[in-house]
Amino acid sequence: MAKKKLILDLDTGIDDALAIAYAVASEEADLIGVTSTYGNVVTKQAAANSLRILDLLGQSNVPVYLGLPHPSTSNHFDVMAVSQAIHGVNGIGEVALEKSQRQPENESAVDFMIRSAKTYGTDLTIIPTGPMTNLAAAIAKAPELTALVGSVTFMGGALTVPGNVTEVGEANINQDPAAADAVLRSSASLTMVGLDVTLRTLLTRKETKLWRSLGTKSGQAFADIVDYYIAAYARLSANLNGCALHDPLAVGVALDPDLVQTIDLNMKVETEAPFAARTVGDVDRLNEPTNVKVAVNVAAERFLQRFMQRLTWLFAQH
Amino acid sequence: MAKKKLILDLDTGIDDALAIAYAVASEEADLIGVTSTYGNVVTKQAAANSLRILDLLGQSNVPVYLGLPHPSTSNHFDVMAVSQAIHGVNGIGEVALEKSQRQPENESAVDFMIRSAKTYGTDLTIIPTGPMTNLAAAIAKAPELTALVGSVTFMGGALTVPGNVTEVGEANINQDPAAADAVLRSSASLTMVGLDVTLRTLLTRKETKLWRSLGTKSGQAFADIVDYYIAAYARLSANLNGCALHDPLAVGVALDPDLVQTIDLNMKVETEAPFAARTVGDVDRLNEPTNVKVAVNVAAERFLQRFMQRLTWLFAQH
Repeated sequence: MAKKKLILDLDTGIDDALAIAYAVASEEADLIGVTSTYGNVVTKQAAANSLRILDLLGQSNVPVYLGLPHPSTSNHFDVMAVSQAIHGVNGIGEVALEKSQRQPENESAVDFMIRSAKTYGTDLTIIPTGPMTNLAAAIAKAPELTALVGSVTFMGGALTVPGNVTEVGEANINQDPAAADAVLRSSASLTMVGLDVTLRTLLTRKETKLWRSLGTKSGQAFADIVDYYIAAYARLSANLNGCALHDPLAVGVALDPDLVQTIDLNMKVETEAPFAARTVGDVDRLNEPTNVKVAVNVAAERFLQRFMQRLTWLFAQH
Repeated sequence: MAKKKLILDLDTGIDDALAIAYAVASEEADLIGVTSTYGNVVTKQAAANSLRILDLLGQSNVPVYLGLPHPSTSNHFDVMAVSQAIHGVNGIGEVALEKSQRQPENESAVDFMIRSAKTYGTDLTIIPTGPMTNLAAAIAKAPELTALVGSVTFMGGALTVPGNVTEVGEANINQDPAAADAVLRSSASLTMVGLDVTLRTLLTRKETKLWRSLGTKSGQAFADIVDYYIAAYARLSANLNGCALHDPLAVGVALDPDLVQTIDLNMKVETEAPFAARTVGDVDRLNEPTNVKVAVNVAAERFLQRFMQRLTWLFAQH
């Protein structure tokens, strides 16, 4: 079977770094580029972090692209304090990775998405794990993109559980509800990997201890980075007993949809307070053909084992 | 196969009347009693309407019980104007059915539920299609009820779509969020038949025309009653192109769970504004064994055909 061409659209971020590692370690995947967005950090920092993580994992051939610096409905973006508390001010748990010798490409994230859709068509899967500002802009610039790409599997939203920034709003969607609404209402084939499932896939210090024991640079670095994340979760979401594998699960599902139970639902995003950022079924299109699959349950143990096998194997080599 | 013993807990109501008819016409069901609650009308009117509908359908042997007159958190209940607009002031589309010669039983709805649970155990299915005040009170008075009954299939809530009284609140749950929360957090085996599916099963004037053509008393009466409901939907929810079969679908699912796709989810009900009455997954119990199945998709054509076959056959006889 041909490998799936993946674009990861990341606000790198600790679980974004794990998503890169999962994609790199997956033989079903060909990571053709990482685009950058704002959220856990500002867009430039996300790109710098992606370059460092790729270098650390021996993937200095994977290009990184700069995306838009702020929400579609604003002209500015500041990192939220809670994001810094979870990911650290530098986005990767205050771990000082070596600065990359590389720079982001000159081509923009939006243009790279459009060019890749035209080049690879249905072989291409786009995986946004931050705000969907870049993808919405790409669709606005080249509406044919939605018919060209194989699928879009995004980490974001909450359908059957409360949000994590408001009672109804999940962090990624909350950054740019209008962009998410435009993507969800588009004709693209979409899979939503939201809090419904990502809060069920948890990592603990047992796993980071194994990585540290490898005695490698990447094993050590990822153990330190993820321990920062685990400590933040222990402070902010003590009831979970671990840190949520939000972004890597989106990559996992993109490569193997059988990891989750999905429901078919045409969706929209609310844009008005106090319900802003709610991802919810669109009653006006309830009986129409659907283009969104929402993950509502996950084979958590199966994914966690696969995740640990792939990442441990990868970290043992670098 | 033994027939399922059914208790319908109704705020009768046009679609409640259809639920009675569906239960009466189903050979898999033994309707052992109808309990009454407030909502579309006040509790006493609900009981009076249930008696009249049962008489009309030749079921004067089915007892009717009076339930509690107001929410668990209040000492009063007034019918909402929107309920009157949908169901008519008398609850059955201003159609003047003959007054029943019978009265509600002396035993209360709550005591009847408890006694039936002890008598029939897992053979018993309770189907609340209004506020869950009676069932919550029964569980509070006799906590063993949750382990005794076979299942509770309720019409109410909205998990994947917006509510119908607020962005997050469905009408039945909104009447008494605390009672619904107590039921959802109980250990009873629950199936939620909410707006997620009931807005997909619609009746139109084509169907009521068929009933009217039967030339029977019940066919004429139900055609008139449901035409009132269809006219209300045309005013209030024109985009749906029909009236929603909320309550009969709950009976349909209780008798044949294969009519719906369900997801397993431990749920709670929000009780604080502006999110009050939201039925949503309980993150604190996300990875625990589940006791709630939420219907998220329905074989609408299959149900509608079955609904029409059963009710048309019934109305042809009375």
